[in-house]
Amino acid sequence: MTALTKIRRAPHKASSDEGVIRRIIEAAKVAHVAICVDGQPFSIPVACAPHNESLLLHGSTASRLFKALASGAKGCLTITHVDALVLARSSFHSSIHYRSLMAFGVAREIAGDEKIFALNSLTEHLFPGRISELRNSTAQELAATTILSFPLDQVSVKVSDGEPDDDKADLESDIWAGVVPIHSTYGVAIPASNLRSEIPVPDYIATWVAG
Amino acid sequence: MTALTKIRRAPHKASSDEGVIRRIIEAAKVAHVAICVDGQPFSIPVACAPHNESLLLHGSTASRLFKALASGAKGCLTITHVDALVLARSSFHSSIHYRSLMAFGVAREIAGDEKIFALNSLTEHLFPGRISELRNSTAQELAATTILSFPLDQVSVKVSDGEPDDDKADLESDIWAGVVPIHSTYGVAIPASNLRSEIPVPDYIATWVAG
Repeated sequence: MTALTKIRRAPHKASSDEGVIRRIIEAAKVAHVAICVDGQPFSIPVACAPHNESLLLHGSTASRLFKALASGAKGCLTITHVDALVLARSSFHSSIHYRSLMAFGVAREIAGDEKIFALNSLTEHLFPGRISELRNSTAQELAATTILSFPLDQVSVKVSDGEPDDDKADLESDIWAGVVPIHSTYGVAIPASNLRSEIPVPDYIATWVAG
Repeated sequence: MTALTKIRRAPHKASSDEGVIRRIIEAAKVAHVAICVDGQPFSIPVACAPHNESLLLHGSTASRLFKALASGAKGCLTITHVDALVLARSSFHSSIHYRSLMAFGVAREIAGDEKIFALNSLTEHLFPGRISELRNSTAQELAATTILSFPLDQVSVKVSDGEPDDDKADLESDIWAGVVPIHSTYGVAIPASNLRSEIPVPDYIATWVAG
């Protein structure tokens, strides 16, 4: 733990549990990545995927964010999962269950054969089961894509869970209190209008819906 | 549109549609707020709610982020909704449907009577229907809460939607292509263990589930 990753607010919510961290990362398809440009922060959503001890970020070669990150800009990468609403008997104790991870560091651009592997990992993470069906990326496509590896060695994780933490005086109240979970679910797959009608929805999509 | 808010990447995805912007804000319970501290970016998830032409942010008086924002730090506020996976016939054209809003500016701390109104607005936005049941916040609770108003006058919005945009040569492929929607839904409400068993789940929670 460094000065950057020390959690000062609500330190009881800090987690260093490797399983918790792993599940936060595995469940994320999008991270927010922030950089500073002349003292002005920019925080941008970016597609992501786990990769060894880092996180892959996928963007266009032409993106300002990716150019800055590839040139060594200090970054802050944040993943947030909103898991539930917590309805306490007062506004003050009402809250949100979340799991969030902040990583600090400088990204590394991935090149060469590692880039092909990384792009495939990204595709497979975002669309599980899909990569075996897709043709290989062309050299031109690879050239138009920047893949960055963002380090996960300076990480701070906060988890808010548990029951409403009401004041004793409010426990006599007649209003309901509890937790309402929030789930992210897949809807019914919508075929492209140019898809030939005899091509079925692949089985792997059904496994996404099943969760 | 200023230099900060000009969208350079994929400008066809830029939106200035007031209805689109309003729906992005109305659907958000959490925003990511980034600041720079000595050239190091920090991007942190924060509970939020619409408020006139600004966005309310809710945090602890003791939070470093909130102290910095209340002291005039330049901020970048980002809201991101991930709406669908887009399965094209190549990795390169596969993508994610999203709606994202970035706002740039300096937050203003809300005080006095406006603070009570703002806190109630936040509670009602996060837990629709709830505020009429809750007791008023105490002076002590108000003092322990910082509410910031983040301006929305410098905003850049990007929307990615539409069908997979495949290369012509890939249209002969036998693999499925299309869009798989992602929905955020509420699960079954879980009563607090100290809730008296005769207190029912309120009707307004059922309307959340119904969407």
